[in-house]
Amino acid sequence: MGTSGDRDPFVVIGGDAAGLSAASKCKREAPDREVIVFEKGEWVSYAHCGMPYYVKGEVDDLLSMTTLSPDDVHDRGIDLRRNHEVTAIDPQRRTVTVERYDTDATATDESGASTTTETFEQSYGDLLIATGARALAPIDGVERDGVFTLHHMDSAAALRAFLEQPGSVDPATVGNGYTDEAYVRQYAEREPPASAAIVGGGYVGVETAEALAAWGLDVHLFQRGDSLLPPFGEAVGSAVAAELREQGVELHLGCEVTGLVGPSGTTDVGTTGGDEETVSGDGEAVDSEGELAAVAHTEGETAVDLAVVGVGVRPNAELAAEAGIETAAKGAVAVDDYGRTSAPDVYAAGDCAVAEHVVTGERTWVPLGLTANRAGRAVGATVGGNPTRTGGIAGTAVVKAFEQECGRTGILDHDAAREAGFDPVSETVTAGSRSGYYPGSAETTVTLCADRQTGKLLGGSIVGTDRAAVRIDTVATALEGGLTVSELERADLAYAPPFSPVWDPVLVAAKVLAGSVE
Amino acid sequence: MGTSGDRDPFVVIGGDAAGLSAASKCKREAPDREVIVFEKGEWVSYAHCGMPYYVKGEVDDLLSMTTLSPDDVHDRGIDLRRNHEVTAIDPQRRTVTVERYDTDATATDESGASTTTETFEQSYGDLLIATGARALAPIDGVERDGVFTLHHMDSAAALRAFLEQPGSVDPATVGNGYTDEAYVRQYAEREPPASAAIVGGGYVGVETAEALAAWGLDVHLFQRGDSLLPPFGEAVGSAVAAELREQGVELHLGCEVTGLVGPSGTTDVGTTGGDEETVSGDGEAVDSEGELAAVAHTEGETAVDLAVVGVGVRPNAELAAEAGIETAAKGAVAVDDYGRTSAPDVYAAGDCAVAEHVVTGERTWVPLGLTANRAGRAVGATVGGNPTRTGGIAGTAVVKAFEQECGRTGILDHDAAREAGFDPVSETVTAGSRSGYYPGSAETTVTLCADRQTGKLLGGSIVGTDRAAVRIDTVATALEGGLTVSELERADLAYAPPFSPVWDPVLVAAKVLAGSVE
Repeated sequence: MGTSGDRDPFVVIGGDAAGLSAASKCKREAPDREVIVFEKGEWVSYAHCGMPYYVKGEVDDLLSMTTLSPDDVHDRGIDLRRNHEVTAIDPQRRTVTVERYDTDATATDESGASTTTETFEQSYGDLLIATGARALAPIDGVERDGVFTLHHMDSAAALRAFLEQPGSVDPATVGNGYTDEAYVRQYAEREPPASAAIVGGGYVGVETAEALAAWGLDVHLFQRGDSLLPPFGEAVGSAVAAELREQGVELHLGCEVTGLVGPSGTTDVGTTGGDEETVSGDGEAVDSEGELAAVAHTEGETAVDLAVVGVGVRPNAELAAEAGIETAAKGAVAVDDYGRTSAPDVYAAGDCAVAEHVVTGERTWVPLGLTANRAGRAVGATVGGNPTRTGGIAGTAVVKAFEQECGRTGILDHDAAREAGFDPVSETVTAGSRSGYYPGSAETTVTLCADRQTGKLLGGSIVGTDRAAVRIDTVATALEGGLTVSELERADLAYAPPFSPVWDPVLVAAKVLAGSVE
Repeated sequence: MGTSGDRDPFVVIGGDAAGLSAASKCKREAPDREVIVFEKGEWVSYAHCGMPYYVKGEVDDLLSMTTLSPDDVHDRGIDLRRNHEVTAIDPQRRTVTVERYDTDATATDESGASTTTETFEQSYGDLLIATGARALAPIDGVERDGVFTLHHMDSAAALRAFLEQPGSVDPATVGNGYTDEAYVRQYAEREPPASAAIVGGGYVGVETAEALAAWGLDVHLFQRGDSLLPPFGEAVGSAVAAELREQGVELHLGCEVTGLVGPSGTTDVGTTGGDEETVSGDGEAVDSEGELAAVAHTEGETAVDLAVVGVGVRPNAELAAEAGIETAAKGAVAVDDYGRTSAPDVYAAGDCAVAEHVVTGERTWVPLGLTANRAGRAVGATVGGNPTRTGGIAGTAVVKAFEQECGRTGILDHDAAREAGFDPVSETVTAGSRSGYYPGSAETTVTLCADRQTGKLLGGSIVGTDRAAVRIDTVATALEGGLTVSELERADLAYAPPFSPVWDPVLVAAKVLAGSVE
């Protein structure tokens, strides 16, 4: 194929964390290699994780949440093409089909979708599929005005504009023009909402509850299951539920939202008197667009001014699957230790792909920001001539729920542990975050899970108000090192009265759990 | 030997962290075993580490810093004998010689020392030497009125009484009567000091600088070497120096204190005019007691109202050495993986003993609180019939220096690394503590050291204002797991905007250092 400069380009599909990490790393490793990134939208390198804090008002500049601007990307020698959607991959011919959209905001069709102005084929030497994930929204009425999913910058911009006083957000300048001006304008001139429904009690739900409560809204959070933040386990879930209630959020646990309904779709909603009510008959088709007035759920109906839906995400793996590339857990793209798919010179990384779990060794799908950055960077290095493993995942996650800091890593669920061949045993302890006599010590609850036979540490969780979140890194690192619970118990962790008691809460948990294994 | 109840008792020398951890654990493992703890002083189970915060005024109750009261100890079925000093060990006859002091505070001889009222022998089945360490004070004049070492509760009580307004501390009730009333009274009625010298720039020095500055004193800190907190390495030392200067502490680096001098001992000190000066001739013996007026040092002399000396500690291992028990590094008692000394059924644990370093595998002496608690607990379990390893040490330490949180673990010093057979290479990075757009992100500086050939992680340090200290546990856990820097780089650490950027500062350092090894 000649020198790297003569080879067909490294083509990247998707301009967020994994895609741009790969493109940047490849350019550093092999500066002569042509690198093209196709991004279907306007935004690149944006931080999903920051959106709740923009909505809350702790972050005011939407653009500040992007790691790289398009200019930064170009400065790295990367050929970034925004408003370019890859619609097909042909692994035999080593090409992708690309549709270019008109970037003029006025050139949308009646439905508001962008119009395609050109379709072309691009050949690749190496290809990275970094198409990310999308928010699930399997609820009737999710298209209504007033319903948000917070999986896109435009959605965050519109919700924030809605919360602000009318006229205080300029739709033309918010996000420096990258946002969908018409969509933001739709909310910028309205009276602020007084109440909100949050559908789903995962990260997005819990973080959004904090964000909306900060604006003084009456916040209802609906969770189909009985526990918040299920991947964090029972101890964290119940602590977070207590915190949310303490902060005035009305929790509806074990309550499934069945629809997002408008004023004319149901009784007793958005109406002022019996005469004006319009009743929808059973089974009668109700328009699923129009304005939101209430959420219908298994306990009845609750009138709200807006709804945020955060019930999970799914990998955007259809493009790969349609090209005959193998998929794996949860439909995500199957990859090996280097991010290689079943097609030659085609890689996948980030929220659309699986990764190896450090505890089970199995390929699993856990869409998280660090994994995406790291896997993308590794693929970029590999493509650039420096073969690099993408690294495993432990499913480490942290989330802020008002004043509670929550963390989890590895395997906590006993059914999942048994499926992976372990005999799980867990212990939960509550210990101080600092020496008891030192001001600011706070109760910190740690759960550790281990295999009863071998003592191998399988996972852990933590919740508390004082520096709890970063302590989960101790457990995550122990998983990376394959430590037993007794080995973790013997780790020489830090002690000083302002920061930790003599026995760090993680060590207390290890001490107790060590008594339950072997 | 019959049942455990019939055996000679488990005798523990020393009633602080290691000794009481051992006694308590042994009683839990073998409730019938007789356990006797001899403590030469009044205080048991007190927290050295808390004293600076008592002096500062953040902790008001001296007793709150003890983990266990004498009554707690008795409630555990332990025969605690305070004011009992073990003066000799006879490993052949399996006895210790004990001197009992009169506990009546008036029964002191002219020098202020307690008087012995009884000497007796006590036989042991198992013996634990948990005699701790003592503060070094190799400076002329350290006995002067106004000089403190902060290695004992009485010293902390007296210094705090000095700092408070006259009459606001009642010497009879402070510390609930456990303190040396006469010693505290000496300071309780005086006008508060306006200036202080701190001799030594280690933990005690840095923490005491913060404590005394909080009372508005002019604080001078003298450090013989050029860097503060030498075990934390250059990056931390310079950050702490900058912080102390920022907070108004006058640093004298590379300046050795040669003496603590009184008003009549030197020129230009504590005098109002030339006529009243008294001059000490070169080589002339100067009274090293009496009142403090100044510190003499290699740059001259500085007038101060008080001095705190914190220039290091040494193991209290003489008792063991005199009994023919082997000693090791820094003169500390030599022990094996279970805390066993060279004498049969004689153990040592805590600040008087060595422990195995997890990085080098060598026996080393690092006196720290967690090590003492853990080793004591392990010895108690072993003596109680459940053989338990004491665990290694990584020398993990954290310290607060005003707003800067500092941590260190493992081996940072390249000479020490080479002595242990490594080819060390270090990198230092500065990264944000949170996502850049999230409020409160602070610069965090991480140094990691690894072996160039194998990539094995050897140690690390951290400094920063936002949750920096507990992040050192990530590195400490990696050392426990024997990770290479590349393995640490791949650890799945926590990310969420309020707590950590996508790439945690430790991961950033690992990424950079991974480029320098192999």
